[in-house]
Amino acid sequence: MSIQPINQITLIGVGLIGGSFALDLKRKGLVRRVVGVDVNQENLERALERKVIDEMAECIRSQSIAGSDLVLIATPVATLPEICTELAYLLSEQTIVSDVGSTKQSAIQAFARYLPEHLPNCVAAHPIAGSDRHGALAAKFGLYEGKKLILCPHEQQNPVALSLMQSLWQAVGARTFIMPAEEHDAIFAAVSHMPHVLAFSYVHQIKDHADGQLYLDFAASGFRDFTRIASSHPAIWTDICLANRQGLLDLIAGQRAQLDTVQRLLEAGDSESLYRYFEEAKATRDDWLEKQG
Amino acid sequence: MSIQPINQITLIGVGLIGGSFALDLKRKGLVRRVVGVDVNQENLERALERKVIDEMAECIRSQSIAGSDLVLIATPVATLPEICTELAYLLSEQTIVSDVGSTKQSAIQAFARYLPEHLPNCVAAHPIAGSDRHGALAAKFGLYEGKKLILCPHEQQNPVALSLMQSLWQAVGARTFIMPAEEHDAIFAAVSHMPHVLAFSYVHQIKDHADGQLYLDFAASGFRDFTRIASSHPAIWTDICLANRQGLLDLIAGQRAQLDTVQRLLEAGDSESLYRYFEEAKATRDDWLEKQG
Repeated sequence: MSIQPINQITLIGVGLIGGSFALDLKRKGLVRRVVGVDVNQENLERALERKVIDEMAECIRSQSIAGSDLVLIATPVATLPEICTELAYLLSEQTIVSDVGSTKQSAIQAFARYLPEHLPNCVAAHPIAGSDRHGALAAKFGLYEGKKLILCPHEQQNPVALSLMQSLWQAVGARTFIMPAEEHDAIFAAVSHMPHVLAFSYVHQIKDHADGQLYLDFAASGFRDFTRIASSHPAIWTDICLANRQGLLDLIAGQRAQLDTVQRLLEAGDSESLYRYFEEAKATRDDWLEKQG
Repeated sequence: MSIQPINQITLIGVGLIGGSFALDLKRKGLVRRVVGVDVNQENLERALERKVIDEMAECIRSQSIAGSDLVLIATPVATLPEICTELAYLLSEQTIVSDVGSTKQSAIQAFARYLPEHLPNCVAAHPIAGSDRHGALAAKFGLYEGKKLILCPHEQQNPVALSLMQSLWQAVGARTFIMPAEEHDAIFAAVSHMPHVLAFSYVHQIKDHADGQLYLDFAASGFRDFTRIASSHPAIWTDICLANRQGLLDLIAGQRAQLDTVQRLLEAGDSESLYRYFEEAKATRDDWLEKQG
């Protein structure tokens, strides 16, 4: 696959996700210049030193946007409306706008509402490459090699814009998938957002317990892994959960039903059914793990 | 600390937990001979080859028990009543009986009910050294170095028996703690059994969903770690959950209350309170992790 190098990208939010994308595109000669916009001056300076970006700006201004072929928004999902509002009068007609957020219906809504005239060139995308590290110093080459990248075209999508984003993500090694935003959001509510909610709520239960601190003295490796995602960034996860709230509410109801089942089996002392319940979960998880290779 | 070597240990259940204990005691010259009893002949042969044990037996018989100073039961917790019943007529008066199970009230109940005359020499213990590996081949030197070991004396406890078990566990590197069985069970319901229930029930929810298999295609590292313990042995966890059911039922009720809170905040779109909720959980988990060093 050969794609034409693009002249300039503006990266709004210079962290692990956007920074790693820029690093690989530069290494492969697919972008000539990256302008980084970030509210954190120190973060911008680190990014400049490490050549993640070539130019920095602390706010969205005409001169950071005007000459760009692509504006990639890589900030928490709740900031999209404000950023789109600021971009509205600065984008040239052919500039592509894309994002990397974990919820895609909310992204398309923001594009439609705050960049209505530019909507065909707005591409909702989500690279599956989370990490507990963040900031420009976390950016690295090869982050997306073999990782999944989901594109969610909308009704007014310009196919050329979609295709360019697909090519760029493939160029940095991602395996791209195309699906409706509704399907994307249902998938990630189930396999990502819900585990975060459960990890946060489980740890919160321990914290709320009068003997919680004593309990924690005896927590071991099972606890450590089960709660790792409860150490995720609370602001990012507040935004994601609210942006995908209906899916999450449905899953919370479903989880209550599962807990009802476990409770019933415990109360009945039904060891055979409880074994089968655990065994089915184990088989599902083991099968999944095996497919990961 | 110097302790006198013991002549013979009978290890009932030759797996990771009991086997690793035997290996270290032998290496340190603290036991002369280990007799392994296990229902799995192949497992026994592996254990013999690897010198985890010196002699093997497929069932509990007089000759495997008679000469032992210590009978260590390292089998799933639900097997304790049956094993104690079999031991009852074979134990000599001074033999110590101990276990390694994850629930201690149930262990003491089994000792009291099935070995009533021997009860003073029965010591309920729990080494905190889980692993997803099991069987004699998983046994290894140094497993208990720096790990926690909890002893739960009961009302009729012979302090000499308690002290010997404490010394042996300390000799293999464990840090020993002494507490009532009720306290032990409350702690491990909270930091171990409940996460297992939640991991199993969460995976079961995905499995039960019509699109569950599609969802799993996009599960990534957060899912992997959160669900690791759902790959645990279902029989072992059925036993543990039933043995500690009241504690678990209380925690399931508590978890429902937490989910109510999250649901309320999501429905209200209360980002400030949701952020605080997540942030409190993160702080609790981060503090815990930092203390682990």
